[in-house]
Amino acid sequence: MSGSIYGNIFKISTWGESHGKALGVVIDGCPAGVELSEADIQTDLDRRKPGTSKYTTQRSEGDSVEILSGVFEGKTTGTPISLVIFNKDQRSKDYSEISKIFRPGHADFGFESKYGFRDYRGGGRSSGRETVARVAAGAVARKVLLYLGIEIIAYTRAIGKIEIDYNNFNIDERFNNPFVMPDSEAAMKVEKILEDAMSRKDSVGGIVQCEVSGVKPGIGEPVFDKLDSSLAKAVLSIGAVKGVEFGRGFDAALLNGSDNNDCLFYDESKKVHKYSNNSGGILGGISDGDKIVFRAAFKPTPSIATPQKTVSSSGENVEVEIKGRHDPIVAARAVVVVEAMTAITLLDLILLNMCSRVEYVKNYYENL
Amino acid sequence: MSGSIYGNIFKISTWGESHGKALGVVIDGCPAGVELSEADIQTDLDRRKPGTSKYTTQRSEGDSVEILSGVFEGKTTGTPISLVIFNKDQRSKDYSEISKIFRPGHADFGFESKYGFRDYRGGGRSSGRETVARVAAGAVARKVLLYLGIEIIAYTRAIGKIEIDYNNFNIDERFNNPFVMPDSEAAMKVEKILEDAMSRKDSVGGIVQCEVSGVKPGIGEPVFDKLDSSLAKAVLSIGAVKGVEFGRGFDAALLNGSDNNDCLFYDESKKVHKYSNNSGGILGGISDGDKIVFRAAFKPTPSIATPQKTVSSSGENVEVEIKGRHDPIVAARAVVVVEAMTAITLLDLILLNMCSRVEYVKNYYENL
Amino acid sequence: MSGSIYGNIFKISTWGESHGKALGVVIDGCPAGVELSEADIQTDLDRRKPGTSKYTTQRSEGDSVEILSGVFEGKTTGTPISLVIFNKDQRSKDYSEISKIFRPGHADFGFESKYGFRDYRGGGRSSGRETVARVAAGAVARKVLLYLGIEIIAYTRAIGKIEIDYNNFNIDERFNNPFVMPDSEAAMKVEKILEDAMSRKDSVGGIVQCEVSGVKPGIGEPVFDKLDSSLAKAVLSIGAVKGVEFGRGFDAALLNGSDNNDCLFYDESKKVHKYSNNSGGILGGISDGDKIVFRAAFKPTPSIATPQKTVSSSGENVEVEIKGRHDPIVAARAVVVVEAMTAITLLDLILLNMCSRVEYVKNYYENL
Amino acid sequence: MSGSIYGNIFKISTWGESHGKALGVVIDGCPAGVELSEADIQTDLDRRKPGTSKYTTQRSEGDSVEILSGVFEGKTTGTPISLVIFNKDQRSKDYSEISKIFRPGHADFGFESKYGFRDYRGGGRSSGRETVARVAAGAVARKVLLYLGIEIIAYTRAIGKIEIDYNNFNIDERFNNPFVMPDSEAAMKVEKILEDAMSRKDSVGGIVQCEVSGVKPGIGEPVFDKLDSSLAKAVLSIGAVKGVEFGRGFDAALLNGSDNNDCLFYDESKKVHKYSNNSGGILGGISDGDKIVFRAAFKPTPSIATPQKTVSSSGENVEVEIKGRHDPIVAARAVVVVEAMTAITLLDLILLNMCSRVEYVKNYYENL
Repeated sequence: MSGSIYGNIFKISTWGESHGKALGVVIDGCPAGVELSEADIQTDLDRRKPGTSKYTTQRSEGDSVEILSGVFEGKTTGTPISLVIFNKDQRSKDYSEISKIFRPGHADFGFESKYGFRDYRGGGRSSGRETVARVAAGAVARKVLLYLGIEIIAYTRAIGKIEIDYNNFNIDERFNNPFVMPDSEAAMKVEKILEDAMSRKDSVGGIVQCEVSGVKPGIGEPVFDKLDSSLAKAVLSIGAVKGVEFGRGFDAALLNGSDNNDCLFYDESKKVHKYSNNSGGILGGISDGDKIVFRAAFKPTPSIATPQKTVSSSGENVEVEIKGRHDPIVAARAVVVVEAMTAITLLDLILLNMCSRVEYVKNYYENL
Repeated sequence: MSGSIYGNIFKISTWGESHGKALGVVIDGCPAGVELSEADIQTDLDRRKPGTSKYTTQRSEGDSVEILSGVFEGKTTGTPISLVIFNKDQRSKDYSEISKIFRPGHADFGFESKYGFRDYRGGGRSSGRETVARVAAGAVARKVLLYLGIEIIAYTRAIGKIEIDYNNFNIDERFNNPFVMPDSEAAMKVEKILEDAMSRKDSVGGIVQCEVSGVKPGIGEPVFDKLDSSLAKAVLSIGAVKGVEFGRGFDAALLNGSDNNDCLFYDESKKVHKYSNNSGGILGGISDGDKIVFRAAFKPTPSIATPQKTVSSSGENVEVEIKGRHDPIVAARAVVVVEAMTAITLLDLILLNMCSRVEYVKNYYENL
Repeated sequence: MSGSIYGNIFKISTWGESHGKALGVVIDGCPAGVELSEADIQTDLDRRKPGTSKYTTQRSEGDSVEILSGVFEGKTTGTPISLVIFNKDQRSKDYSEISKIFRPGHADFGFESKYGFRDYRGGGRSSGRETVARVAAGAVARKVLLYLGIEIIAYTRAIGKIEIDYNNFNIDERFNNPFVMPDSEAAMKVEKILEDAMSRKDSVGGIVQCEVSGVKPGIGEPVFDKLDSSLAKAVLSIGAVKGVEFGRGFDAALLNGSDNNDCLFYDESKKVHKYSNNSGGILGGISDGDKIVFRAAFKPTPSIATPQKTVSSSGENVEVEIKGRHDPIVAARAVVVVEAMTAITLLDLILLNMCSRVEYVKNYYENL
Repeated sequence: MSGSIYGNIFKISTWGESHGKALGVVIDGCPAGVELSEADIQTDLDRRKPGTSKYTTQRSEGDSVEILSGVFEGKTTGTPISLVIFNKDQRSKDYSEISKIFRPGHADFGFESKYGFRDYRGGGRSSGRETVARVAAGAVARKVLLYLGIEIIAYTRAIGKIEIDYNNFNIDERFNNPFVMPDSEAAMKVEKILEDAMSRKDSVGGIVQCEVSGVKPGIGEPVFDKLDSSLAKAVLSIGAVKGVEFGRGFDAALLNGSDNNDCLFYDESKKVHKYSNNSGGILGGISDGDKIVFRAAFKPTPSIATPQKTVSSSGENVEVEIKGRHDPIVAARAVVVVEAMTAITLLDLILLNMCSRVEYVKNYYENL
């Protein structure tokens, strides 16, 4: 397999298991000259960190990142940046009883079918904890994007059947509740359904929306490596995501062309605008200059303490209650992961785009 | 850019424009020894071919494929297979009037922003006609998958608000109506809404569902190159797709874990089964042995003859009516394209999986 | 396998067999806006064309290239450029008698071991004719490099034991003799040894030297994708090449550091120069601003009409005389192939280098 | 840039600087089920370790490797293996005086031209110390190859003008002298020339030969990713290598076809053999079943304490004596690096080859 390396120019190579010694990422292809410190990365890691409210796993991890290479005198050198986060609070024995059981809704059976055995401690490589490395890499990509004036903001749009009301939308509100919802009223409703689910030892799904501003038109490759197809892969590669849609998304299938097409106009400064943004900022796989908007559907956490029928690796039909420390909702902690994967993917396509015209190449080479 | 090459082992490289001389694909990495003839490929191409009903573009293209390399004495040689389809019925002058206009809902503005100019004839490389090469490559991948007992079937699940009724589901029916719907009643209803839309010079969106049987558990890489994330990219790279979802998809976000988890059991022959298939056959990015099920949302054809506000490349706000020959619905002709991209992606991940265990490697090498 | 695709950004995908219908290449990643016509490419193809002297195979091929996509109104569009060269003068029956014999010095036995059977007509994909596609792609890369002021010139430095004398060096002379030697006296001596070898139904090896001017310092990636390691792969991927060396090359192994190091100095305009060029223009895998210089060793053509011991695929020890139409010397016709592979590789690394500093990225993005 | 990731299936991603906190490698694509411990890797690292004789740098590094992920219960899991080696004996201040000087024969000027600044401490990423990560990854690849019966042995063939005498060849001897020479007499002669060079504050070049046994015919891809072109890149990517040649190598250019071709015969068990091995075990880029043999030319260490003319980054012509702790000869410590790069490259191509025939694919899938 070779599925833990991602990207074309800005390439990341992640590693580590839930209950191993550490997790990390090597970034090969970050441009030289980016001011980068551990604090820049820690900010995003802290948003993903467990144990910050009673609605997340109580595993206690500081998730402190260490930069082991690729930064010299405060700036990226252009050579690989190695980031490591050591595990602190593994309790592997929690998992001994499920070592021979395939948990419903988990990759256990697939992993064992694939590799012949598996690191069952906390799901090993298939744990949500794997995303800590993505967030670290995403923080670096985000740093580069900031130089370009590009901002990526994701938030929880819905948890279970509770959706935010865009009349109450306040993006600053998202950090004031444990669900990362930009609507305090919706967040209060969510508390109730979560308390209810948790009391029933159950979990809840949700939807994350991501919006990117500052992307100029022309980014994305027109055939396979479209901006949206690339983002779709990026986001669906996050565990628990079961769907992704851009702009009007699935609703577009219900519309007529005359409703769905976004008409264009010039403003006074001869900049092109659209009257609407059904496209979600991407047409034919290429950015159209408008805000990029997409949504990802997260299934409910599969680890639940209610009894479930399943099978053991030794051939028996059994019943299991998943103990250990689990989030009752994945979507909220995943918000920053969605941002990270978006940042990494978008930066990579922007870098690729630098080579799209011979005049860019000529201009660059003449000024060397 | 380098966005027209796709795959890791089974790599395809597509080329060609709507109104150029030809379109084609080079497949590098097809295993040697596959029996392959032009007829094998033509079957799928004929399903995508325009002009087969009044609900598709009236452009007349035989879409005959020619094998230029990689097949010797009826079998693939293991070296690149070059497939070409020459264009016959280009009417480029149809496009002269839109050469300086950015069509709403199209990639025109993005293309021109990206490359500085564009082949405006029929959309050039951004035309739906580009998919003819995908279908050709997909037919080859499908041929290999058949050796493995894997079958891929897609169909139109909905057009506009008309959805098929699974009580009437008959997969053989899909080739008896121009919408590729496995429900003859739904197809009749679609005729009406399409007639209506066409009379209003409008177009309609739709949803394609794809199902794959015969995939054993263990296929797909656990982190970035998941089976579902890879399929998502594959499918979203088809023009006009705005969303994709697996198994329960977006609905999973509304569920509790206890409802969404698929419980497992052994049958008498000790094969693992699931009581339900909310996962869509994929968990943690790896096949779970169940049928793979996903859906893609297609937006309505953006080319419509109703007047729309837009801009010209010379800086004016204008109004445009898109003439020429266009499908009023994309989804139906795209069914075989969805199958093709699925075949290519799945085969590639199966080939990658051959290297997943040292016992496979050893067994292969010892028997050389 | 997936070994017929090459490059990171400027990616080429070649296809075709010696006696198939055609050969060709798809270039994905050529920047938009390059003025390109078939004549631009034909010039280089004509240098590789067979039958131009009695010292090359007498197979008669015009090797006319056709551009099937990727060029619009005389300029590259940024999307894939498909180039095709149809075969004209296949005489496949020449090969029927060797269809069951593994020719010494050829890939026959390896191919059959790898794929289980092979297209034996003229060596199929392992024929030197495969390089026609490389030359076509190389001509496009060269066109881009010319915009940057980069010039690539290769020539035959030695054939058998006859080496050019640098006192007689005249680069214009290389097109005045069939051996592409920039020394008319050496060329005359070569004629004699070739006549002699041909009379004995034998063949001769040789050395090609390649020099690139106009490469600014800083090109090449410092670890695996070094400028020299990348060129080495490029050149050794040409059939019949058995060695490659840069600057002083193998001789450097005999030297002391004090002799081999190139000392540096500033000229009056504060440009950095070296007192010598033992490095061949590359240090630590990165261009140092000096002329890039390397040599490739070509073995003698393995197809010879002298009787040789070998084996049949049916299990017998046999003797074979290779008939058909073969070059008595590979190196001369390969000169343009070396240039082509150099152009493709160098351009690719220059494009990659555009992303090496955040100030380049910022400057590009701000000016979009 | 993205030049620190290498391989197609068995992918390695290396990182770290000479005087940073640590160096390491992430291996993505190692098959599951390989028994692997730190001791397996340490054996090879100890061969590369500095300070083992007076003919290497006196920097004192234990070079202890730690496995941070990808191994569970003593076996590789199939997911990324992260290996780290912490630096212990950095003396960065040794380098302060050369921080503003471009050392002759080094990448300093190229690095600064490329990235705008550089980590000058010990050459940063361009240091020979970078190869510690290659050796660690190579040890893992070697472990897999041992399952297949493949053995890779390299040795120093020549240092300066002293070449081993194959009449005295004794492979076990290579670990009995600090030059890794399989000829004790030659080693004694080398001592003298090294003492002499060191007394003159000078350094010496050398040639490393590598031989691989147990490679079955059919490995390597026939066009760009040839077995020899891939090995050439692998080996030339090691700092200080200036040339590589296979089998007869550069000498083949002097021969006639009748001398250079290796004639074939069947032995009694109908196995194919060659009467000679001028091919070096590779024909047309594919293994021919014979021993693989190639040589790499290493230039003399560029860091010498003799005064050399050079330039400062501030624009002056200056003179420099390189102090610090340096090997007077690179080739000897590089022997294990050559083996490592060979192992990584060969394994990768063997894994790729698993997909070369549909019968292999079918056989694998049926037995899942």
